[in-house]
Amino acid sequence: MKLLIGDKNYSSWSMRPWLLFKHFGIPVEEVLIHLNEPGTKSAILAHAPTGPGKVPCLIGDDGSATWDSLAIAETLAERFPQHALWPRDPAARSHARSVSAEMHSGFGDLRSNMWMNIRASFPGKNATPGVLADIARIEAIWSQCLATHGGPFLFGEFGIVDAMYAPVVMRFNTWQPSLSETAAAYVRRVTALPAVKAWIDNALRETHTAPYLDECP
Amino acid sequence: MKLLIGDKNYSSWSMRPWLLFKHFGIPVEEVLIHLNEPGTKSAILAHAPTGPGKVPCLIGDDGSATWDSLAIAETLAERFPQHALWPRDPAARSHARSVSAEMHSGFGDLRSNMWMNIRASFPGKNATPGVLADIARIEAIWSQCLATHGGPFLFGEFGIVDAMYAPVVMRFNTWQPSLSETAAAYVRRVTALPAVKAWIDNALRETHTAPYLDECP
Ligand SMILES: N[C@@H](CCC(=O)N[C@@H](CS)C(=O)NCC(=O)O)C(=O)O
Ligand SMILES: N[C@@H](CCC(=O)N[C@@H](CS)C(=O)NCC(=O)O)C(=O)O
Repeated sequence: MKLLIGDKNYSSWSMRPWLLFKHFGIPVEEVLIHLNEPGTKSAILAHAPTGPGKVPCLIGDDGSATWDSLAIAETLAERFPQHALWPRDPAARSHARSVSAEMHSGFGDLRSNMWMNIRASFPGKNATPGVLADIARIEAIWSQCLATHGGPFLFGEFGIVDAMYAPVVMRFNTWQPSLSETAAAYVRRVTALPAVKAWIDNALRETHTAPYLDECP
Repeated sequence: MKLLIGDKNYSSWSMRPWLLFKHFGIPVEEVLIHLNEPGTKSAILAHAPTGPGKVPCLIGDDGSATWDSLAIAETLAERFPQHALWPRDPAARSHARSVSAEMHSGFGDLRSNMWMNIRASFPGKNATPGVLADIARIEAIWSQCLATHGGPFLFGEFGIVDAMYAPVVMRFNTWQPSLSETAAAYVRRVTALPAVKAWIDNALRETHTAPYLDECP
């Protein structure tokens, strides 16, 4: 299998499935495609002509493509049942899918105002009312999950839900909005997870840049 | 089980799981909450305090809440394995999840410019370049799925993927963008499906309105 990803510094959607492969030790060949270049889309389409020309995209040994971070996560959960990618308990799993799908389809204000840029530091910027409402909802989700399952991750051990929210953790490190102690501690635990640390270390060493994401007016 | 939904005329996200219950004959009690009212959010939260206060939301007999249309679909697929909610073939299922998750997290231009309003007719309006790009991608997805699986629905028989795209079919009926014959024929087949017809018939008979969605300047 091959996993197409974007620059680790910027590609929030790529980070999610990459963390799942890394954390659960599932072997995959990583293919990094630079974002924000004239040839980005065609390079992705060359690997996966039926997809949207976006990363992440998982290419099977038979050439079949699975794209979109959440679909890749569901596919991994199904193919590697020996790993608890989703919580094993059905009620917890429905809840986990709820907060994952909510993340996947929402939080537009946070996404557009506090984009992922691991190398950057923009403390206190862009905290619009819409962003603050998104952050308040994220804090409510995290504290409710942590209280229900006892931590250290959202549903106990690290899994798909934490991977779905990991780019948010990166955004919080960059933009440093004020957070409850519960949320701040969760941010620290995710940041320190070996798979996350490996992604961050790689991002810090990258040299390809997307200049429009490096400035925050 | 109870399924909280919004007004059938407007609530695109509610339509998806409702169609799955209806088409597959899964019993559920329907609770309709009017959208765009001062009390909308609190009425939803009264049923599901841990959710985002949005519809759709599925309430289990134990009071547990599953929200977000895609999470409800995955949960139904898991709980009712006797129904082929996803394609039975693993490769087809990964592809089905890819195009479902792509719909779930994307197509922002189409969503915001061609909102769902089943009773309305706004032919030719709001076809911005971004909307046309979204429509072109949807046509590519549909024609590729129909060619691979032979129709009549995207993966053969009606399932989650068709339910995910059903609100797009409603938008196309209202805004009438020009479509390939393949796409137009799929739109007609979805519109004629008994479960879809039942939703449309209910929408036509509703009297609650969201005036800001009834005008297209
Ligand atoms: N919903 C998709 C979004 C994927 C996406 O937007 N990827 C961006 C990079 S993070 C991309 O590939 N952009 C390249 C381009 O549009 O040319 C997912 O979760 O995988
Ligand atoms: N991604 C969610 C979106 C749900 C959503 O935005 N629902 C709207 C109606 S279609 C809603 O409940 N709005 C009520 C409100 O925000 O007060 C899903 O797929 O279920």
